[in-house]
Amino acid sequence: MRIYCAGPEVFLPDPIAAADRKKKLCARYGFEGVVPVDAEIDLAGLSPVQAAMRIGQYDEEMIRGCFAIIANITPFRGPSADVGTAYEMGFGRALGLIVLAYSNVSQSFTERTMRSLKVPAVRAADNRLRDADGMLIEEWGIADNLMLESGIAASGGCLILEDVPPEVRYTDLRGFERCLARLRETVRK
Amino acid sequence: MRIYCAGPEVFLPDPIAAADRKKKLCARYGFEGVVPVDAEIDLAGLSPVQAAMRIGQYDEEMIRGCFAIIANITPFRGPSADVGTAYEMGFGRALGLIVLAYSNVSQSFTERTMRSLKVPAVRAADNRLRDADGMLIEEWGIADNLMLESGIAASGGCLILEDVPPEVRYTDLRGFERCLARLRETVRK
Repeated sequence: MRIYCAGPEVFLPDPIAAADRKKKLCARYGFEGVVPVDAEIDLAGLSPVQAAMRIGQYDEEMIRGCFAIIANITPFRGPSADVGTAYEMGFGRALGLIVLAYSNVSQSFTERTMRSLKVPAVRAADNRLRDADGMLIEEWGIADNLMLESGIAASGGCLILEDVPPEVRYTDLRGFERCLARLRETVRK
Repeated sequence: MRIYCAGPEVFLPDPIAAADRKKKLCARYGFEGVVPVDAEIDLAGLSPVQAAMRIGQYDEEMIRGCFAIIANITPFRGPSADVGTAYEMGFGRALGLIVLAYSNVSQSFTERTMRSLKVPAVRAADNRLRDADGMLIEEWGIADNLMLESGIAASGGCLILEDVPPEVRYTDLRGFERCLARLRETVRK
């Protein structure tokens, strides 16, 4: 049973080593981890734009062959998850995959968004928090944009929140492993 | 023929007015614009978390009823698109929808990412740009994470880039209208 492992680890200095660590953990729980790294894809003779398109379609094909997705939604260059990861979660959800996720930052989405703003948010006349552009800061008490969490919940998945030291924010796999444990329970039922 | 209109307009001070503007433009091009606003959904008696989950599932149902999606991927609180929008693009792509997108910021993803960093990026020994966490800054010459653009291209959609004054970044609809024109051409073929 194949699991697609989504997340910003593809941007780490050694994405192949990061992929191997996830694959090994998947195997320990009885699953096959699918963790695309660009090195697996033949990009010979392609322009940078063509290469990017090829990688994206390769990733989509990988997701189509999986029964579940475990997404690392640790905030990436802003208060939210990596958008490529969010895209893959939506893609997997539409295909009926079980969508699980973990984040290595447990602070609420509202808090993170507030802290990321250059100009402090204000509570407007309608009693809602708004940034300097007048854009709403949501206060649902959830971990990221509601589309992500709603897809996780509806798919029968789970969201695991951990707090780790900043230097291992993109490499700590305790949340990933907790997702694997939950998935094994789900499959056994 | 229904089009799902995705984007961060739901966070504007008057999301219903923003939705109406998009719906009117869709009608002018012979389409029905589907622009979910929370006000349409019965959230009575739900906790904030339950309400968020209900809204997300309502949005997924809306996408299932459409043949195309036009996503506003204007950068939102960081160098990338709103993650909810990215999720919806992946969701639509997996269902076979035509995925079109526009951004009101034409600067490249690489440039925007560089400018968003608190600590300047460095070109590492492998000749790749990396941020202070060692995470790669991609240089594909595209507008956002490759999953988004690859999905657009593979679906037969298009990406329209505009540059608008900052104060109308989330309301200018010229890019949206250009997507509608392209979609009408596609449908007529």
